[in-house]
Amino acid sequence: MAVAELCLFPLGTESPSVGEYLRPVIDVIASSGLKYRVCPMGTVVEGPVDEILELVERCHRAILEAGAKRVVISLKIDDRIDKPPTIEGKVGV
Amino acid sequence: MAVAELCLFPLGTESPSVGEYLRPVIDVIASSGLKYRVCPMGTVVEGPVDEILELVERCHRAILEAGAKRVVISLKIDDRIDKPPTIEGKVGV
Amino acid sequence: MAVAELCLFPLGTESPSVGEYLRPVIDVIASSGLKYRVCPMGTVVEGPVDEILELVERCHRAILEAGAKRVVISLKIDDRIDKPPTIEGKVGV
Amino acid sequence: MAVAELCLFPLGTESPSVGEYLRPVIDVIASSGLKYRVCPMGTVVEGPVDEILELVERCHRAILEAGAKRVVISLKIDDRIDKPPTIEGKVGV
Repeated sequence: MAVAELCLFPLGTESPSVGEYLRPVIDVIASSGLKYRVCPMGTVVEGPVDEILELVERCHRAILEAGAKRVVISLKIDDRIDKPPTIEGKVGV
Repeated sequence: MAVAELCLFPLGTESPSVGEYLRPVIDVIASSGLKYRVCPMGTVVEGPVDEILELVERCHRAILEAGAKRVVISLKIDDRIDKPPTIEGKVGV
Repeated sequence: MAVAELCLFPLGTESPSVGEYLRPVIDVIASSGLKYRVCPMGTVVEGPVDEILELVERCHRAILEAGAKRVVISLKIDDRIDKPPTIEGKVGV
Repeated sequence: MAVAELCLFPLGTESPSVGEYLRPVIDVIASSGLKYRVCPMGTVVEGPVDEILELVERCHRAILEAGAKRVVISLKIDDRIDKPPTIEGKVGV
């Protein structure tokens, strides 16, 4: 079980406001069945690494379908096998 | 004004639990005067870019003082001059 | 077609030198069939996003098999549909 | 002594090609006196952490002067005190 943070930036969008490209991505995450939390610099999800990576691929398709011509995806995963991390556990450092 | 996410990982710590190295870092951020929020995959701060970068240097010194022999620092900054971002604003995509 | 950079850090390894955990990861990338380049802060690969994400999952398994109890994976993907990026093209900014 | 990778993305640029915004950034890095290498997913620099962070601030100003209205900065630093890392050393995992 892992906790990951996913962040997508569309490039070449005319306006620096990119919310219209990100809303479909949040919808994909919300309907994934994985536990998630929208954070200021990305959306955090909790789940097995293979399911997180499949979700990244679906988010990637969603932002292209929203019209992005170029997208930068930033993903950070924290996977721990001795004591699986959780979204709640990781806030209480 | 920018919003940034800062994340530090000490390497070579014997235990995979690294909270003892991160608590002094959180203390440095909490006493910085910058608005901040502890998130699952890093701590988010709001402020001018130069102040954020000075804070990163102080966090870096704090984790070395806590005994880390090697540290990976991951920083992501979102700076916007037409409409300065805020921690609250960036959650409501 | 995308260009991505992949970086894995094992935590809790006793020594700050983590090469023994990373060599099996490089082997997995080298035998993937994808074009790649070992860079100072990560390994860069070129390919379709879905193949890159499958490769990340195989690298993740390789570092756990090498004995890591906790691993932080950092991935950055640049995907562009109007003019697919390449490893060579992205160096000549 | 640390090795770091720095990557800047301007948002809201009309064209997905952002080279005109990045060339002034590369110029700033090249004239910094720090050892550096342009890599596919970012520019790698070698130096003390405080000098790297000052350089990030100068790169940030350079991309705004080049006309960016919003910029995402991604920075990853590997600092090691027992055995300082080098750009060359980190490629030979």
